[in-house]
Amino acid sequence: MTTEAVTGQSTPGSYVEPGEEYTRDTNYIEDRITRDGRDGWPVEAGRYRLVAARACPWANRTAIVRRLLGLENVISLGMPGPTHDARSWTFDLDPDGLDPVLGIHWLQDAYFRRFADYPRGITVPAIVEVASGKVVTNNFPQITLDFETEWTEHHRDGAPDLYPEHLRAEIDEVNDLIFRDVNNGVYRAGFAGSQDAYEKAYTRLFDRLDWLEERLASQRYLVGDTITEADIRLFTTLARFDAVYHGHFKCNRNKLSEMPVLWAYARDLFQTPGFGDTTDFVQIKQHYYIVHSDINPTGIVPAGPDASGWLTAHGRESLGGRPFGDGTPPGPPLEGERVPEGHGA
Amino acid sequence: MTTEAVTGQSTPGSYVEPGEEYTRDTNYIEDRITRDGRDGWPVEAGRYRLVAARACPWANRTAIVRRLLGLENVISLGMPGPTHDARSWTFDLDPDGLDPVLGIHWLQDAYFRRFADYPRGITVPAIVEVASGKVVTNNFPQITLDFETEWTEHHRDGAPDLYPEHLRAEIDEVNDLIFRDVNNGVYRAGFAGSQDAYEKAYTRLFDRLDWLEERLASQRYLVGDTITEADIRLFTTLARFDAVYHGHFKCNRNKLSEMPVLWAYARDLFQTPGFGDTTDFVQIKQHYYIVHSDINPTGIVPAGPDASGWLTAHGRESLGGRPFGDGTPPGPPLEGERVPEGHGA
Repeated sequence: MTTEAVTGQSTPGSYVEPGEEYTRDTNYIEDRITRDGRDGWPVEAGRYRLVAARACPWANRTAIVRRLLGLENVISLGMPGPTHDARSWTFDLDPDGLDPVLGIHWLQDAYFRRFADYPRGITVPAIVEVASGKVVTNNFPQITLDFETEWTEHHRDGAPDLYPEHLRAEIDEVNDLIFRDVNNGVYRAGFAGSQDAYEKAYTRLFDRLDWLEERLASQRYLVGDTITEADIRLFTTLARFDAVYHGHFKCNRNKLSEMPVLWAYARDLFQTPGFGDTTDFVQIKQHYYIVHSDINPTGIVPAGPDASGWLTAHGRESLGGRPFGDGTPPGPPLEGERVPEGHGA
Repeated sequence: MTTEAVTGQSTPGSYVEPGEEYTRDTNYIEDRITRDGRDGWPVEAGRYRLVAARACPWANRTAIVRRLLGLENVISLGMPGPTHDARSWTFDLDPDGLDPVLGIHWLQDAYFRRFADYPRGITVPAIVEVASGKVVTNNFPQITLDFETEWTEHHRDGAPDLYPEHLRAEIDEVNDLIFRDVNNGVYRAGFAGSQDAYEKAYTRLFDRLDWLEERLASQRYLVGDTITEADIRLFTTLARFDAVYHGHFKCNRNKLSEMPVLWAYARDLFQTPGFGDTTDFVQIKQHYYIVHSDINPTGIVPAGPDASGWLTAHGRESLGGRPFGDGTPPGPPLEGERVPEGHGA
């Protein structure tokens, strides 16, 4: 899900309600794709298409998990461009502006095929059943968990366990704090309709980043000693921090690159297959700076910051940790899914 | 002068012309206050009032020079608040919203007393003749030069020579480059009406900052081995760089604090009497983020960045240099002219 459509009621380009706190609409299409198919959507190779714009942090999570687990040949990937037209996400980067599998111009077509009068935000990530063209779910926090726990028979050899049973309580707890203060916290700052609401969000955000800076000083990953769902959720916000949130959302006590531990942690992940190779800074910047026309009416996209620092040595190996646990890193991205030259670090 | 009134034609809050480069109106009231009084305005203690908002970089120059030269008791200082109403600069921080010497609410009153149909921007700095209430000049580059060369008989004992004759050609040359690419360059980036105009300004700005980073690596000040007019002109832009230009004007290749030489140079000056003690980060941020409503429609003022770094050791003494040449630093600011607690570093 993304604020690109805060609620079905919002007009295009309207994200800030003067005088109001920003409140994320957290009602989604909550069907799940499960092994037992209890919601009518059984796990099945080739049956579904993940629609995930590179720009969106919530969608980026699903692209990372799909890569890490080796689901690329099981669940295909559609990628809307970074900006919107009046109907929200569009497949404007694809030939003739049509998703090559779903054959639609606008993601909303898949929502409307599911519910003709769908009243809420047209959000990514969304999973679409290819044959019917219907959105199955856009419930982003559940999508990655289900990739990890329901699609196990389709995981690649050496796929890591991103949601280990004995750590789930701790992962869930950390995820809750990070969602509230960081993942959604940057939006609460950026879309604040009053100085007071902004300052509250800013304080909570940086308090939480200070807490993370301390937590990650002595451990390589957020929970346990391997990469988990918690790291993925934090990463996609950190990857956008200096490029967008620092300036556009006024999260500017400091840049990520000025917090030595978090910055090294983020680079460590960025340089891990599945993370940096799904991060497209050009699309990220275009998305926020062009779509949020009520925050940036000129539509001018900043040329900075210099992203080359993402590739510098991070030194986190000295903390130990086993990135993929007993597993292995994924191979390179599929041919058609590579971040274009010049869009990465 | 300040972009707060780009031209007399611009409507309040309108700084960006879509599709256009930003072009500064550089036509001012060019009368000069001189020893020989040839324009009708002779140098005379107590005759004039300098109107200089703390927020404005062009005005800040004049406040610094007045401090360094010890002209505080010879030329009084009026300080409009950081934001504007429809009539531009106002004395809203003064009791009853009236400048206590000129007795006016709006700076435009002093412009209109001089020219009833004054058609251009109501800008600071402006020098007003107290008795007549008329603006004498708002020609900012000349104001500081005249403080330095025409008001010499009123300089304090130990006042530095900020515009030494044998260095004038070099100072003028450096000033020209810095004006074009840096002082005005940040505005050209921030007020660009097209992506192309923005990127050109951004490139020129950072090329020039790289040039300065190199020039200042081996010399403490820009020209010669003492503080000159050139340092003052560069300083007021650098002081606003991370607080405003980095985010608001999208000058975000990097922060000033990420350029080790320039950042140490800026801190060195900041910690020199006359510089940091005339710098008010709260007013600076309020000004840009509230007045430029076409760039920041929400009017929300960022809480960051953390300004405490301005007071850290800079190590520039090791380059030698004699800040005030054969002179001495100025004493503390006048009682009524201190930057409020919490507004500095």
